[in-house]
Amino acid sequence: MSSTPAPSQDTLDKLRAVGTATVSMQLLKRGLRHVSVNGVKPLRPDQGCVVGPAYTLRFLPLREDLSDPAVLGAPGYGPRVAIETCPEGAILVVEARGIATTGTIGDILTARLAKRGVAGMVVDGAVRDGAGVSATGFDVWCLGAAPPASITQLSGGDVEIPVACGDVTVFPGDVIVCDGDGAVVIPAKLAAEVAEDSVEQDRFERWVQARVEEGRATIGLYPPNAETKAEYEAWKTSGGQ
Amino acid sequence: MSSTPAPSQDTLDKLRAVGTATVSMQLLKRGLRHVSVNGVKPLRPDQGCVVGPAYTLRFLPLREDLSDPAVLGAPGYGPRVAIETCPEGAILVVEARGIATTGTIGDILTARLAKRGVAGMVVDGAVRDGAGVSATGFDVWCLGAAPPASITQLSGGDVEIPVACGDVTVFPGDVIVCDGDGAVVIPAKLAAEVAEDSVEQDRFERWVQARVEEGRATIGLYPPNAETKAEYEAWKTSGGQ
Amino acid sequence: MSSTPAPSQDTLDKLRAVGTATVSMQLLKRGLRHVSVNGVKPLRPDQGCVVGPAYTLRFLPLREDLSDPAVLGAPGYGPRVAIETCPEGAILVVEARGIATTGTIGDILTARLAKRGVAGMVVDGAVRDGAGVSATGFDVWCLGAAPPASITQLSGGDVEIPVACGDVTVFPGDVIVCDGDGAVVIPAKLAAEVAEDSVEQDRFERWVQARVEEGRATIGLYPPNAETKAEYEAWKTSGGQ
Amino acid sequence: MSSTPAPSQDTLDKLRAVGTATVSMQLLKRGLRHVSVNGVKPLRPDQGCVVGPAYTLRFLPLREDLSDPAVLGAPGYGPRVAIETCPEGAILVVEARGIATTGTIGDILTARLAKRGVAGMVVDGAVRDGAGVSATGFDVWCLGAAPPASITQLSGGDVEIPVACGDVTVFPGDVIVCDGDGAVVIPAKLAAEVAEDSVEQDRFERWVQARVEEGRATIGLYPPNAETKAEYEAWKTSGGQ
Amino acid sequence: MSSTPAPSQDTLDKLRAVGTATVSMQLLKRGLRHVSVNGVKPLRPDQGCVVGPAYTLRFLPLREDLSDPAVLGAPGYGPRVAIETCPEGAILVVEARGIATTGTIGDILTARLAKRGVAGMVVDGAVRDGAGVSATGFDVWCLGAAPPASITQLSGGDVEIPVACGDVTVFPGDVIVCDGDGAVVIPAKLAAEVAEDSVEQDRFERWVQARVEEGRATIGLYPPNAETKAEYEAWKTSGGQ
Amino acid sequence: MSSTPAPSQDTLDKLRAVGTATVSMQLLKRGLRHVSVNGVKPLRPDQGCVVGPAYTLRFLPLREDLSDPAVLGAPGYGPRVAIETCPEGAILVVEARGIATTGTIGDILTARLAKRGVAGMVVDGAVRDGAGVSATGFDVWCLGAAPPASITQLSGGDVEIPVACGDVTVFPGDVIVCDGDGAVVIPAKLAAEVAEDSVEQDRFERWVQARVEEGRATIGLYPPNAETKAEYEAWKTSGGQ
Repeated sequence: MSSTPAPSQDTLDKLRAVGTATVSMQLLKRGLRHVSVNGVKPLRPDQGCVVGPAYTLRFLPLREDLSDPAVLGAPGYGPRVAIETCPEGAILVVEARGIATTGTIGDILTARLAKRGVAGMVVDGAVRDGAGVSATGFDVWCLGAAPPASITQLSGGDVEIPVACGDVTVFPGDVIVCDGDGAVVIPAKLAAEVAEDSVEQDRFERWVQARVEEGRATIGLYPPNAETKAEYEAWKTSGGQ
Repeated sequence: MSSTPAPSQDTLDKLRAVGTATVSMQLLKRGLRHVSVNGVKPLRPDQGCVVGPAYTLRFLPLREDLSDPAVLGAPGYGPRVAIETCPEGAILVVEARGIATTGTIGDILTARLAKRGVAGMVVDGAVRDGAGVSATGFDVWCLGAAPPASITQLSGGDVEIPVACGDVTVFPGDVIVCDGDGAVVIPAKLAAEVAEDSVEQDRFERWVQARVEEGRATIGLYPPNAETKAEYEAWKTSGGQ
Repeated sequence: MSSTPAPSQDTLDKLRAVGTATVSMQLLKRGLRHVSVNGVKPLRPDQGCVVGPAYTLRFLPLREDLSDPAVLGAPGYGPRVAIETCPEGAILVVEARGIATTGTIGDILTARLAKRGVAGMVVDGAVRDGAGVSATGFDVWCLGAAPPASITQLSGGDVEIPVACGDVTVFPGDVIVCDGDGAVVIPAKLAAEVAEDSVEQDRFERWVQARVEEGRATIGLYPPNAETKAEYEAWKTSGGQ
Repeated sequence: MSSTPAPSQDTLDKLRAVGTATVSMQLLKRGLRHVSVNGVKPLRPDQGCVVGPAYTLRFLPLREDLSDPAVLGAPGYGPRVAIETCPEGAILVVEARGIATTGTIGDILTARLAKRGVAGMVVDGAVRDGAGVSATGFDVWCLGAAPPASITQLSGGDVEIPVACGDVTVFPGDVIVCDGDGAVVIPAKLAAEVAEDSVEQDRFERWVQARVEEGRATIGLYPPNAETKAEYEAWKTSGGQ
Repeated sequence: MSSTPAPSQDTLDKLRAVGTATVSMQLLKRGLRHVSVNGVKPLRPDQGCVVGPAYTLRFLPLREDLSDPAVLGAPGYGPRVAIETCPEGAILVVEARGIATTGTIGDILTARLAKRGVAGMVVDGAVRDGAGVSATGFDVWCLGAAPPASITQLSGGDVEIPVACGDVTVFPGDVIVCDGDGAVVIPAKLAAEVAEDSVEQDRFERWVQARVEEGRATIGLYPPNAETKAEYEAWKTSGGQ
Repeated sequence: MSSTPAPSQDTLDKLRAVGTATVSMQLLKRGLRHVSVNGVKPLRPDQGCVVGPAYTLRFLPLREDLSDPAVLGAPGYGPRVAIETCPEGAILVVEARGIATTGTIGDILTARLAKRGVAGMVVDGAVRDGAGVSATGFDVWCLGAAPPASITQLSGGDVEIPVACGDVTVFPGDVIVCDGDGAVVIPAKLAAEVAEDSVEQDRFERWVQARVEEGRATIGLYPPNAETKAEYEAWKTSGGQ
């Protein structure tokens, strides 16, 4: 678990305003290439941008002695514990081994997560009963939907340990940013500065987009050469937003 | 070919009412983990739940001496025979080797299947001219659409033999259940009992969902502990549906 | 670069009218099985059929010494040069190594391509900010959207060389046909004759489809036996279109 | 099953003398690109070149109701029937779905095949107890060795039907050629002519190799231009072998 | 960590005498299909059969902020801690995410493990400097050798937690059996009974092999019918070993 | 092509003395994680360490109009030109698209390369007639051997352009280091300093290995803490090699 304090509301708001593409570039500038969760997409097209600290859950490879249906009711079974302990506002990040052919969670459990105020879920696996899950209004980033229950191909593991989700390492408390393109992980200690710089990058790119719409060529404009930089700074000085 | 009698209309209706997630759990309870056809999705979003006995067709790997365009008109060529022999109400289950980059069937042949009253098609491959196929109104579960004809990457094989579709074995006469999540295969001899138990499971889960909407925690509720079971039985006794 | 003259407007129009399934069959009849770009799909559902000569761009595997963010502004950097040099009416065909987890281009650059009159883009990779790209109205066939910038997993290569896109070889000047099913490559020297024969194939298949709608069986009809051929020729002679 | 007569001893001897690389080129010249069994290698390094007609066996995907250990003793269970019915001198060609992590056969059954005079086995799967199998002296081309029994990941299917082995279609009676590089399938009706032409190709390449050893450049030599062809013909006329 | 007592020397000796194929069948008879570590092979051909309780180490996906070369010397860095804490006689089981293109350990660390009396290592990844590792005489089951250091593609995780190795779940204390075919995991609580039954299975199979060598057919012999069982029991009664 | 001067003999000798593991670590210290050619292994076990500047050749995906057997004799056909133009002492680096099921070169062409003094070949593909290639004594790093000729699955491309080999970018003139673990690419401009630092790293690791053999624990030793560093420096000062 990270010892970094939870991200401020201001940081979360800034990240929600910019989205994954901008955040991803800020992380690349800091040398981080492995922060985008491979393969996950919004289950519903209208999920928008969701941001929050990670609460983690691990699944293990199927071992039949650990995946009898009776296990679902066993005290302390991780995947069921997580449903009741994931905090309000957090994003449940689930390691499901990239298996798109088994559901990890269905409409009853997502209804409960929504009820409890959990912000969303990112899983490198599938959901069950995709239509039912969508109907709960809970926001899920996943590999799609598949009929079988989790224990058909997976065995339950622990909560709040580091997980590998979509080939990316996520620690409890890291900040997750999700939108139409997928989900990106910001190491907890970098969240505030990445949010700050992302807002500025986003402002610059909106200015560039307006220039392109005016017919400007992109060479020298994006990325900007010295002249373009000066022009942009002048625009900012003159109050451009 | 199964020696089990064809599924009754009652069995088919019950399965259609519950869908793949519930059926999949009933099969898991009977020790069957490999019954969900990997990767197939409804071609049109509004296909609903389709159920029927399997009629099978196999494709083989491409061998150029077996895949000259002239073969499409040869008497007894399996993939064309199937179009005219698959029974009304059946589901045509096609082994296409998981190849998503070659179409197996296009709008003309799906129009004919629809005309003949075939219930639907499940193929671990693609269709050609996805828009055209969709326009025929025929229900297809597949890996998507791709331009090339089947003989570009496949050679035709036999009908009504056991097939491997989406990494699942399907015998002629097995019962297929398809919905928004994918397609599940029920061995013919289990179809009636799985239908029966699925209806009861579905009733219980609807009762649970209502409790979650009231704010109940899921531990002890789902799966149910002794107290929950008693409460549910009381509800049923009092006429709950 | 092909020494074949650019395709005529008539050829482009004919290809646009028939789409990828028909073109793919004509190429198969000429012994070409490897002409469909694996995996690419229209980014927006309403992109229709787009046709044009290929202008090519290659990405190479990531090598960190070639993918510092500063490289994006370097003179002669291929992926940025291509944005300003790809001709009006051409299709930008990009080799992105089948990597679906890194964007290759975002909304600013696609806005510029649209502004310059480029017909569309085919890339065996992802775009960044899928919603932003869609909003520019530029037509893209790709593997989807992903947050990271190209240099996160790729390094820039040259323009106007032969490329491997979706496991298909594309030379500058080859003719690209894209629609809802994907994208197909026609070697430049075959474009005119493929267009011609595709139009006739398309007419025949529309006639067949009408027969199927009337309830005719497909054996002997599609492909046609001698009797069916005579019937079709009579229909044509009598002015059928 | 092919209606072509079994290959003559002379054909088998010629094929054994030339090996898979030469046979593969002869098949390519006849338009056949999909005839090399993907991935299989000799289990023992000293297996040499083995040739014979195919006797086929299919495995299906695991379905637990078909793969209880009791099934191994059921009458008519294909994988056990094949051990006693595969003819002397034949090659047992097994479809094992490219699964390298489950053995399909172990030392007891290969000992029996050796005892019965079966020429060898090609399987796109693994063997169990690789050391034990090697000790029987039976020649196997496979994906390696793995501990689990076949029914751990597969279910038994039929014998003497067309099979897909290493992504290649094999019909009973097709001629199989195996050596250090892998295994190649010759459609039954082409075996005699391919054997004939392979012997001549092999003689030419041995002559070329001798020229390269003398220091000749390969351009114009291999493939030969008119001058080289004349020189080779003169050598043959003068009795070169 | 398992609460089962460590396996007795007698159990370990029995398992070492029978090997992975027999153990795998005993586990299948108990309903366990997912116990064979996918893909691992002995690094040296002469490693024989190695058995011991598991001591576990996890690697996580590469995250550049966790994989600077300086991390290798950080106190508590898991992959280095494991080298000094893995007990004598244990097998170090390492989750390396199936990545065959990065080494996880080289000759210096394997020399130290050998010096400390660790029985062996199973890793679903590669070693570095395969020749150097082989020279230390330490027994490794792995995916081969590759030049890069672990931190090139992985980040270090914890020791003595459940791990996923070769798609199999391993808990600390489970019993690992390795030989020429690969590695198999026995859940700790089953080790004694599996060892017992494996010895009897092995005796029966040696008796069968002798019958096959005498020319007996395998139907009815293997698996045995009632008559064969009686014959075998008589042989045992008469002192057969 | 690199504008860096060719590597000196001293640089090549140093690299040959240390091998790929050490070179790979030196490149990682410079931020380069993508420099090890995925999957290639020495064809013969006794190939030792081979070092040289890269001469490159590209194959493209198969397009049947470019891969008729007649093309092998066409003037300027890249794959044949390369055999006669690759310089003495260079390593021929071939992009073969990671296809292990088609040979790229056989015994005649490798015999010619050996005759011309080419140092070796690295190809992310297979060779044909593995035994014949081995017999020529030419050193090849590849994915193994397979029967079919290159044009069965590939089309010929250009020489001396940047290539993607085993998911690594190689420019003509980059320095290639090959040994039992695989092959590593050093960007031309870094070759001299990497060679220098590798020699020192190798000396330190040999000193560490000797300490481990004496029974020293690895924590604090490897990587070295301040005390260990001082001890090593003292050893060097006292003449240790």
